[in-house]
Amino acid sequence: MTFNAALDSISTYEAGKPIELVVREFGIKEDEIIKLASNENPLGASPKALQSIIKNAPNIYLYPDDSMFALKESLSQHFQVSTNEIIIGAGSDQIIEFCIHAKANENSKILMAKTTFAMYEIYSKAVGAKVIRTPGEVHNLAEFLEYYNTYHPSIIFLCVPNNPLGDCLDRVDIYKFLKQINEDTLVIIDGAYQEYAKAKDNDKNIDPKELIKSFPNAIYLGTFSKAYGLGGMRIGYGIAEKSIIKALSKLRPPFNVTTLSLLAALEALKDQEHIQKSLQNNLEQMPYFEAFAKEQGFDYIPSYTNFITYLLKEIDSTQISDFLLQRGVIIRNLSSYGLNAIRITIGTKEQNQKFFALFHHFLSQR
Amino acid sequence: MTFNAALDSISTYEAGKPIELVVREFGIKEDEIIKLASNENPLGASPKALQSIIKNAPNIYLYPDDSMFALKESLSQHFQVSTNEIIIGAGSDQIIEFCIHAKANENSKILMAKTTFAMYEIYSKAVGAKVIRTPGEVHNLAEFLEYYNTYHPSIIFLCVPNNPLGDCLDRVDIYKFLKQINEDTLVIIDGAYQEYAKAKDNDKNIDPKELIKSFPNAIYLGTFSKAYGLGGMRIGYGIAEKSIIKALSKLRPPFNVTTLSLLAALEALKDQEHIQKSLQNNLEQMPYFEAFAKEQGFDYIPSYTNFITYLLKEIDSTQISDFLLQRGVIIRNLSSYGLNAIRITIGTKEQNQKFFALFHHFLSQR
Repeated sequence: MTFNAALDSISTYEAGKPIELVVREFGIKEDEIIKLASNENPLGASPKALQSIIKNAPNIYLYPDDSMFALKESLSQHFQVSTNEIIIGAGSDQIIEFCIHAKANENSKILMAKTTFAMYEIYSKAVGAKVIRTPGEVHNLAEFLEYYNTYHPSIIFLCVPNNPLGDCLDRVDIYKFLKQINEDTLVIIDGAYQEYAKAKDNDKNIDPKELIKSFPNAIYLGTFSKAYGLGGMRIGYGIAEKSIIKALSKLRPPFNVTTLSLLAALEALKDQEHIQKSLQNNLEQMPYFEAFAKEQGFDYIPSYTNFITYLLKEIDSTQISDFLLQRGVIIRNLSSYGLNAIRITIGTKEQNQKFFALFHHFLSQR
Repeated sequence: MTFNAALDSISTYEAGKPIELVVREFGIKEDEIIKLASNENPLGASPKALQSIIKNAPNIYLYPDDSMFALKESLSQHFQVSTNEIIIGAGSDQIIEFCIHAKANENSKILMAKTTFAMYEIYSKAVGAKVIRTPGEVHNLAEFLEYYNTYHPSIIFLCVPNNPLGDCLDRVDIYKFLKQINEDTLVIIDGAYQEYAKAKDNDKNIDPKELIKSFPNAIYLGTFSKAYGLGGMRIGYGIAEKSIIKALSKLRPPFNVTTLSLLAALEALKDQEHIQKSLQNNLEQMPYFEAFAKEQGFDYIPSYTNFITYLLKEIDSTQISDFLLQRGVIIRNLSSYGLNAIRITIGTKEQNQKFFALFHHFLSQR
């Protein structure tokens, strides 16, 4: 059977390895495996979200409330924007997909950083758009502006802070940049890790309300998968001027988010105490990873997220990743991004100590 | 901001009204509302699926196992097909979307029945394809064959049994039809209600293994939203020859199904006792709906599903739907399909009796 030609160019996203796979492949017990590969919140979801799931499980035979009334109201209050400035997706991933399908086609160019979230390119290629990347390793707005002026992209992705590297632009610089962008260019500010960035440095804080008021061609993306601890529930959101939301909503399939995901997100958003505890753990544990890198002589990128990226030299990223994997510690090998680097999610103190101990063991064997 | 022109032609799916909306709009208590609008299983999900959700809730901070290993293995055993002949989606809806995006574009024609599942058209229009409909109200394979020969569609949808009408083609007739279709035409056999059809009449039973072995250009779609009682969990599957599955998989976004949905589906599939109980309730209750229609002089279409469609004459479908809605009984007004008709999900005995009583009340007021 023949298919559309665009399928030939689509590559598949390489996800962090799941715990189930390590159980199956290496016979390690599930509760002995530590996953520091996908930047999940090591403290888990809010206990209130869990209670809501358990309480509402008997209603799963019913289709979700497709208006998503309750969660939209709650996000509207949280961000002080109107409900018609909000769209909810199966992860903020799905909002990225809506943006690209709404705005781009085989004649479009889409601008992004050299090393950034892989799904930007995968969704761009699915519509046949041309991907343009700035040359420097971390986000550099001078490069973005130069490439914008040269290539006239229809979409620009800024990942703030950037996954998988951890670098983060300053708000004032982003605003200066946005002032120079044509109002028909959609600028996507991916704030998947914003909770971590603003807890560390308020200069990194992007307020969606302020952003979309000043720049009606910008969309802010947020997720419940990271700090909010709901990675398995597939739920995120976009905030933009209402005509953008209206266009994206046309591409939203009915019932794109499960009933339990909507309820869990509602409770997670209310439980700011759990978020504070999660951010605190991250701020406390990050310095150990920086100290370890310095001790071993690795380069690392100062991180505004809940992960850290080690740029390796003498060690091979695949070798150390496999060594740890076989011993039940899953980290992210960045070789698929063309880097000899590893990305490690900041876990709990116990998880991190096991990572450091195994890494020492690896080094001592060489 | 400008968007792709295709967005202009996209209409939005009109879903059955959720219970939450009736609570909000009419101030009726949640436990007094009866939803007979979206063909959910009135006995709910398998208790084993609920137990699995409750047990696994603490793991929702982790991303799902994107290989969907366990559920694919289980579906593979259930249908006696290979795991590479299976794709899992956020409802079978999402598989419909993958099929259309993989195979169709603005130059394509897509053939379907006059009155059938609305999402076929919505997804077709999203890629700019032309929708061709057979003229008769119910599925008619002579018409399908004539239109196939005239228009050369790249995709044909057969909804077996058909939603929202309830009619159902015989397996032998479908097979005769498929023999006359070119191998480059993708034929989608939507089996969302197959469990109900085959429980009533084995001539309606489509075996996915046999189907795809005989017709490598066919894909079978199944869902956990109806008989399996997981409408709120958004999970369904497609079964086809492995090169089709490979092409569709390129369009599957990572983590398209939640962790709890995968686990719930796994348990629901195992719990065939719960399915049998659900099918039994449906077979027992359907005759009351047929008798009521005869009593009142309505036409109805003999149904092979868990709903029945009344074709109204003197009564207006919007009037009766609104009357019931204001009293806490939600049914589906088919006016958006251009019909003066209503579709009622077969509920439990108690739910159905409330429906009949209110309908009598409505008639007595006229």
